[in-house]
Amino acid sequence: MIIMAEICWQIDFEAKQPIYLQIYEQLKREIIQKSFSSGEKLPSIRRIAEQLSVSKTTVENAFRQLEMEGYIDSKKKIGYFVADLSHWAYQTEHMPPDMLKEKLPTVVQYDFSNDYIDGESFDFALWRKYTNQALREDHNRFFDYGEPQGAYELRWELARYLHQSRGVNCSAEQIVVGAGTQVLLHMLCGLLKEDYHQIGFEEPGFAFGRYVFMDHHMKVVPISLEEDGLSLKELQDEGLKLVYISPSNQFPTGRVMTIQKRMALLAYMAERQGLIIEDDYDSELRYFGRPIPSLQGLDREGLVIYVGSFSKILLPAIRVSYMVLPPKLLPLLTEKINFYNQTASVIEQLTLARFMADSQLEKQIRRTRKIYARKNQLLLEQLEKQMGERIRILGKETGLHVLLEVFCDKDSETIVKAAASVGIKVTSLKAYRFNPLENSRYPLVVMGYGGIKLEQIAPAVEKLAQVWFH
Amino acid sequence: MIIMAEICWQIDFEAKQPIYLQIYEQLKREIIQKSFSSGEKLPSIRRIAEQLSVSKTTVENAFRQLEMEGYIDSKKKIGYFVADLSHWAYQTEHMPPDMLKEKLPTVVQYDFSNDYIDGESFDFALWRKYTNQALREDHNRFFDYGEPQGAYELRWELARYLHQSRGVNCSAEQIVVGAGTQVLLHMLCGLLKEDYHQIGFEEPGFAFGRYVFMDHHMKVVPISLEEDGLSLKELQDEGLKLVYISPSNQFPTGRVMTIQKRMALLAYMAERQGLIIEDDYDSELRYFGRPIPSLQGLDREGLVIYVGSFSKILLPAIRVSYMVLPPKLLPLLTEKINFYNQTASVIEQLTLARFMADSQLEKQIRRTRKIYARKNQLLLEQLEKQMGERIRILGKETGLHVLLEVFCDKDSETIVKAAASVGIKVTSLKAYRFNPLENSRYPLVVMGYGGIKLEQIAPAVEKLAQVWFH
Repeated sequence: MIIMAEICWQIDFEAKQPIYLQIYEQLKREIIQKSFSSGEKLPSIRRIAEQLSVSKTTVENAFRQLEMEGYIDSKKKIGYFVADLSHWAYQTEHMPPDMLKEKLPTVVQYDFSNDYIDGESFDFALWRKYTNQALREDHNRFFDYGEPQGAYELRWELARYLHQSRGVNCSAEQIVVGAGTQVLLHMLCGLLKEDYHQIGFEEPGFAFGRYVFMDHHMKVVPISLEEDGLSLKELQDEGLKLVYISPSNQFPTGRVMTIQKRMALLAYMAERQGLIIEDDYDSELRYFGRPIPSLQGLDREGLVIYVGSFSKILLPAIRVSYMVLPPKLLPLLTEKINFYNQTASVIEQLTLARFMADSQLEKQIRRTRKIYARKNQLLLEQLEKQMGERIRILGKETGLHVLLEVFCDKDSETIVKAAASVGIKVTSLKAYRFNPLENSRYPLVVMGYGGIKLEQIAPAVEKLAQVWFH
Repeated sequence: MIIMAEICWQIDFEAKQPIYLQIYEQLKREIIQKSFSSGEKLPSIRRIAEQLSVSKTTVENAFRQLEMEGYIDSKKKIGYFVADLSHWAYQTEHMPPDMLKEKLPTVVQYDFSNDYIDGESFDFALWRKYTNQALREDHNRFFDYGEPQGAYELRWELARYLHQSRGVNCSAEQIVVGAGTQVLLHMLCGLLKEDYHQIGFEEPGFAFGRYVFMDHHMKVVPISLEEDGLSLKELQDEGLKLVYISPSNQFPTGRVMTIQKRMALLAYMAERQGLIIEDDYDSELRYFGRPIPSLQGLDREGLVIYVGSFSKILLPAIRVSYMVLPPKLLPLLTEKINFYNQTASVIEQLTLARFMADSQLEKQIRRTRKIYARKNQLLLEQLEKQMGERIRILGKETGLHVLLEVFCDKDSETIVKAAASVGIKVTSLKAYRFNPLENSRYPLVVMGYGGIKLEQIAPAVEKLAQVWFH
């Protein structure tokens, strides 16, 4: 046993660290290293104070901290004792962090993945202006998490915008704001969990949505896509009363659900007292004609949960998505909304509300549509010129990608790899399928053109044609 | 039947709306109003173009939009026909939105709820500076959702900070960033769902965390709190291998789990190959001595998932939380991370990384701690002065609230209501319990002092004493 006062504690009276913490640290280390046995009485506070030439209060503070953390026990009028630390084996060595190296990016010269937007499409100076306004003028809104449903003024702007541009009928009370579509779907799973245990999902479809329902132990039933929208027959055969669709701009095929099928789907769900989740992602970005009006706008029975975001129109980095609940779900929402903290930054919510109130969103959409229409047109021209009859272009009028059917006898993995071998990133359609089996005769690949530069398109397509067909 | 050319379509050549859209809108309205029967042939494009004095392309564009949406069908070389819209009943009237009135705020003069931070604690000008830096200099990071785990530089800063200030041992690779603790727990449920179906939860504890596990159909088992932390015996009796705790600053009781219990809990979970979720919320805000080191720092076997945020130190409006996974979960994380889009705004992440790199966080913590220490001290003094022996103050050294045991023969609802009747908002401890039955002899109430002004404390406590004891 080592007598404390003899072990030369290193008290540094010049150090920034308070003296009581130095005593605490050293005594703790000794206890950990088992220089004391458990139950052993420690020297008195008075004695330690004297030996170290510090005040009794200083030593008391150190002891109080050690006692609070459970290293020592005090017995009234007797003194302090080392606590029982029989489990202490744990601390004797330090765990080396088993580092997982971050993946290094592979060299991609032409990136046709679907993750990026155009670098010129966003006016940062303008967004800074509204951010600074919000940070200056909305101070008193930032001291709590904000309204669980989202800032009222943003919801009000959203209701107005969605009505005007997407034909959605709703009031601010029906809107819930969240940091991304997945967050809103998590909440929806919470709201619906008692009544819904399976969900139909377009095949192929929005994989990130599917994952959420799977995480919530819902059974995901893939439903085939027909030319005019998903198969109602399969929906019926499976007896489903919940379905996730993107009717106005099917992701990733770009197909549009016809008005007849919309009506039939609404009638089907009305009969079963079911619900339709309408993902209206990217519907603003249509390069021929005008955007297809939403399904929600046709719904007279309140069957549609409408989901959308501005990720591709503003910046993916800004995390504000929204969902519109039908009136019949509002009592449930009111009951459960206080179980969820708002996830979207209040600063970004109020910045966006100010941006929308000044009609900047409409301007931004026009600007964005123009940029992508040019890329879309050039890409289609180049594909036609370089590949001609050897491909078929599907779903070319919307969003930030085209879908190609490549007439060759390779499978989609092979042609994605062939592209990668010359520095071009494209994605197999399989990535969006629940059931990864290829169900088409020829490989299908998704080419996103959001992030690629206009001048890169021609050389990239030329390279692709060479590696695929020569 | 009405012949189209005779019904005087209103084409306004001066209007901002393109002519093809005017034709589209009017023809669509006629189809909806059943001015045509389904299957009926429409007049030819040429004829309509002539009668309206517009180009054939204009009419073609209108027809193409209608065809895409499914209102009309084309038959090659024959013409256009009205589609079958037998389900059309839906659109005939407009659903009145069943508005749910937003709740009006009740009149609260002294708000001791636990939702707010101090209005003076945050330096907005400083945050604006870093936000503007990020928006100016990090442009090219905002064109996608960002790294699913969170921006690397932020995770790097977090690893450094957590090691220095909380004794957490980790590398950036172990950290996942998300828009709030609930979002991270949702992800965790997704990662753990195969192996864990029930979870022990401190009673009372962090209700918002509990809701997430319940939404994921996990069985939540309330575990009693003892003086030195949660009951290991109950954990053992239930055979639990997953537990959610806040050992360094138990929410809302403020209790500290002793080193012995920490060791015993680690040993217990090591034996069962279990996991501990350590919620380290607000541990920086301790007004006596230094913050209690984290449990994660003691863990040699990699059993602890560490969760935290800066909601109360910075602004609740900024939605950046973090979790540190033990090395053994990293292969699972790598496998599943691409199923989740990042939820925290990349702009806020990079702003925070810059803020931390300049050591502003440490300054902010010192500043914040000073502000709340003053409020804490004044509140304790006033409670002592006005209520004396009629209350017992529990959990007074940490966080932004105190816990009061009120020696009276009323229940907690009654005294919360009594407070409300004089404009004072306090919360019953029951709100944090899974099992809402009162299990203490005297009512327990939580008084948050984050948002209240220093000068409000004395008059509020005086009023409270009057309404509770007179």
